[in-house]
Amino acid sequence: MTARRLFTSVAAGAALALGFATPAHAATPDGVAQSFLWVAVILVVAKLGTFVERAGQPAVLGEILAGVVLGNLTLAGIGFFGPMAGDTVIAFLAQLGAVILLFQIGLESNVASMRRVGARAFWVAAIGVAAPFALGTYLVGPWLLPGLAPAAYLFLGAALTATSVGITGRVFRDAGVLQRTESQIVLGAAVIDDVLGLMILAVVASIATSGVVDAADLGLTVLQVLGFLVGALVLGQLGAPALSRGFAKISRSAGMKLTVALALCLAFAYVAHLIGLAPIVGAFAAGLVLEEVHFKDFEAPRIRAEVLGAVEGADGRTRARVGEILDRHRDRHLEHLVDPVGHFLVPIFFVAAGMQVKLEALADPSILVLAATLTAVAIAGKLVAGLAAGNCDRWLVGWGMVPRGEVGLIFAFVGKSLGVLDDQLFAVVVLMVVGTTLVTPPVLAWLLRRRPAPAGALPTPKAATAD
Amino acid sequence: MTARRLFTSVAAGAALALGFATPAHAATPDGVAQSFLWVAVILVVAKLGTFVERAGQPAVLGEILAGVVLGNLTLAGIGFFGPMAGDTVIAFLAQLGAVILLFQIGLESNVASMRRVGARAFWVAAIGVAAPFALGTYLVGPWLLPGLAPAAYLFLGAALTATSVGITGRVFRDAGVLQRTESQIVLGAAVIDDVLGLMILAVVASIATSGVVDAADLGLTVLQVLGFLVGALVLGQLGAPALSRGFAKISRSAGMKLTVALALCLAFAYVAHLIGLAPIVGAFAAGLVLEEVHFKDFEAPRIRAEVLGAVEGADGRTRARVGEILDRHRDRHLEHLVDPVGHFLVPIFFVAAGMQVKLEALADPSILVLAATLTAVAIAGKLVAGLAAGNCDRWLVGWGMVPRGEVGLIFAFVGKSLGVLDDQLFAVVVLMVVGTTLVTPPVLAWLLRRRPAPAGALPTPKAATAD
Repeated sequence: MTARRLFTSVAAGAALALGFATPAHAATPDGVAQSFLWVAVILVVAKLGTFVERAGQPAVLGEILAGVVLGNLTLAGIGFFGPMAGDTVIAFLAQLGAVILLFQIGLESNVASMRRVGARAFWVAAIGVAAPFALGTYLVGPWLLPGLAPAAYLFLGAALTATSVGITGRVFRDAGVLQRTESQIVLGAAVIDDVLGLMILAVVASIATSGVVDAADLGLTVLQVLGFLVGALVLGQLGAPALSRGFAKISRSAGMKLTVALALCLAFAYVAHLIGLAPIVGAFAAGLVLEEVHFKDFEAPRIRAEVLGAVEGADGRTRARVGEILDRHRDRHLEHLVDPVGHFLVPIFFVAAGMQVKLEALADPSILVLAATLTAVAIAGKLVAGLAAGNCDRWLVGWGMVPRGEVGLIFAFVGKSLGVLDDQLFAVVVLMVVGTTLVTPPVLAWLLRRRPAPAGALPTPKAATAD
Repeated sequence: MTARRLFTSVAAGAALALGFATPAHAATPDGVAQSFLWVAVILVVAKLGTFVERAGQPAVLGEILAGVVLGNLTLAGIGFFGPMAGDTVIAFLAQLGAVILLFQIGLESNVASMRRVGARAFWVAAIGVAAPFALGTYLVGPWLLPGLAPAAYLFLGAALTATSVGITGRVFRDAGVLQRTESQIVLGAAVIDDVLGLMILAVVASIATSGVVDAADLGLTVLQVLGFLVGALVLGQLGAPALSRGFAKISRSAGMKLTVALALCLAFAYVAHLIGLAPIVGAFAAGLVLEEVHFKDFEAPRIRAEVLGAVEGADGRTRARVGEILDRHRDRHLEHLVDPVGHFLVPIFFVAAGMQVKLEALADPSILVLAATLTAVAIAGKLVAGLAAGNCDRWLVGWGMVPRGEVGLIFAFVGKSLGVLDDQLFAVVVLMVVGTTLVTPPVLAWLLRRRPAPAGALPTPKAATAD
């Protein structure tokens, strides 16, 4: 054994010594170092992927496509990156990236504007669940795949109801249009959709296993979910100032401010998961309740005091202009602090998502036709929902609801684990999820170019996303 | 099965669908959500721990002590946090935190100032390896623990040679004294120490296994390590501008700049690990070669253009003062971008390190006495080395070299895995590592207060660490 190899191999032991891993599920520092490499690779390909911005496409599409390439290099005989897809650390970082993204989106939204679009968001969500469900369960299912058990059609319909807000949120955020009415409706509807989806899953799973709906169980689920959302918003808004004041007593630094905010985000994500919601819903709620004003006990950005001191002797007009810029900067301080964390982690989510697309599946024409049809239905169902958005760009709302993402996959997996969906149907649902995810970013980008923000809307300055 | 539980339990399936985990080592989203909670808990206790700053102690000591409390709550009958110590994701994030910390320290250092103190750092490292090794192997080992095999004394001495720069680097950084001569010497000496340690490990492992030294193997190790360090510094300094120019062609955003820098940091950490060095040495090297000037093709902080525009009409003196502040800000832009990532991840490293301290071990008086003696020897050996630091605060240099950290543990583990160190001796070495780690931050804080920076040194403004 060479000394070098010895040194490397015992690193696992050192990890144990540091208690960083129990023997039961030990991450060797070999594994840790390997994950460092995977993260570096993912960041580089993600950034290479953003080359699509040159073609007017959203960066997120490039990141997903970069992931598709990375995940299918084995087809080209390059197996080196194969283990990346199975790396638990990468899996975690991807999920953490999604949580940070929704936290950022929540920070840039606020409860008041969400409440303003509440009713419209509810109708978009309700129709966006009902229409695809009806289309899938009663029309496309029996028509395309005759002779299956009724429960199979139920799950097919249920898988079509999901909305994954990650893609749309990212496109809207990068385009600086998160404050537009359409964006707020989509965000609100996606949260409501997650709640409705939880109930639908409870119902169809009950039917598939026992043939009947367990009303008490369903009621409990609904109560818990509503309790979490209301509790998060009410307690969050009431408790955040006290939390902030308490920690500011220990230190008023920007680091403390960021850390408290991130801890709250992760705690909310955990509780959401406990309730049965997606962690990203909790992260979004955390971002929603946190406002810069809650952190007034913390230090403002240091550059503020320096520049204010430097312009003290200047004329009144200069002082006023500089003061206004610095105020705007201070009011987004928390967002600016979270941004670098997002730059680091968010691309990991989208590249990892792209890596899941298995190009081999496209080789079977019959599955391809089924998947294409189901994707068309999935899109149509959400576009119908967009019509309920009232006086705004209804196409933008409808397309914003199209991506199914990981939520649709959860439905498919429940169906598969209950033995209701067979392998073929499962593959079709997965392809539908991929299809809706890939087609949305370019369409949204095109719609945003065609229909710029109407007068009265407040476009977010792009500055919010960089710096 | 309730719908809620069903929903939760199948989340594992969804993770598989997203390919986020292979069945072989599946991280269930249950596990992912659990890790969210652990991270939130760690961030909160870390920040509560920084309360020690009120007592004039460095924040890092508070973070470690918070980890000690968290890791020993089972002694108080609270078992809830027990699984945290075995969470592979927390283990990874802790290591990532150490890598980010050393990257930050590297960014705030530069090759020229390291070269200026090179010779002194070499002597500090050489004596800091030789003195503790001789004391441990030939004096304290045979005296305290008579009758062991010679190889046991060799490993005891070898475990005393290590230097872990994380603690000291953090204390110096938080105190804003990274630019002081003493800090630069400690950083340089720690890197050299890692290289020397690798050679010592090769030698003592050879002796323990075959009784002789394999000169060819040792030579190869040395060549590889020197090749990496020289290659990293030379190629990094030559290659970074080209790399930066290339990615700036895709996007000139701050996000791109940060991501490219982090990818380089992680890639260097991986290569260092491949060679047999600690990943943090690679991260430090990456930070050392990256200079703000390499990123001149990227956008400056957006606030710069805004404020410059606002003061355009002001008097010349105001313009000059504002311009100077903004230039200083721009020249640290990359550091400021990495800071929030560090705020997030670095405390995880120190809390996780503290969690490894098992207070039960302190119950055995004989082990305690041995450990205390070994700790005293460990400190004395490095203080002797500090005397080689020449015209500066030699005590500060010596104490800066004291913490053994994970590097000392690696030695102990090799010795244990080769059957050279028994359980008792191993426990003593671990306690010595813990002792040197805990005692250093308060001593460094005290020394820094007693002996402020001499004239001519450029203290880093604290602003560098927050914002």
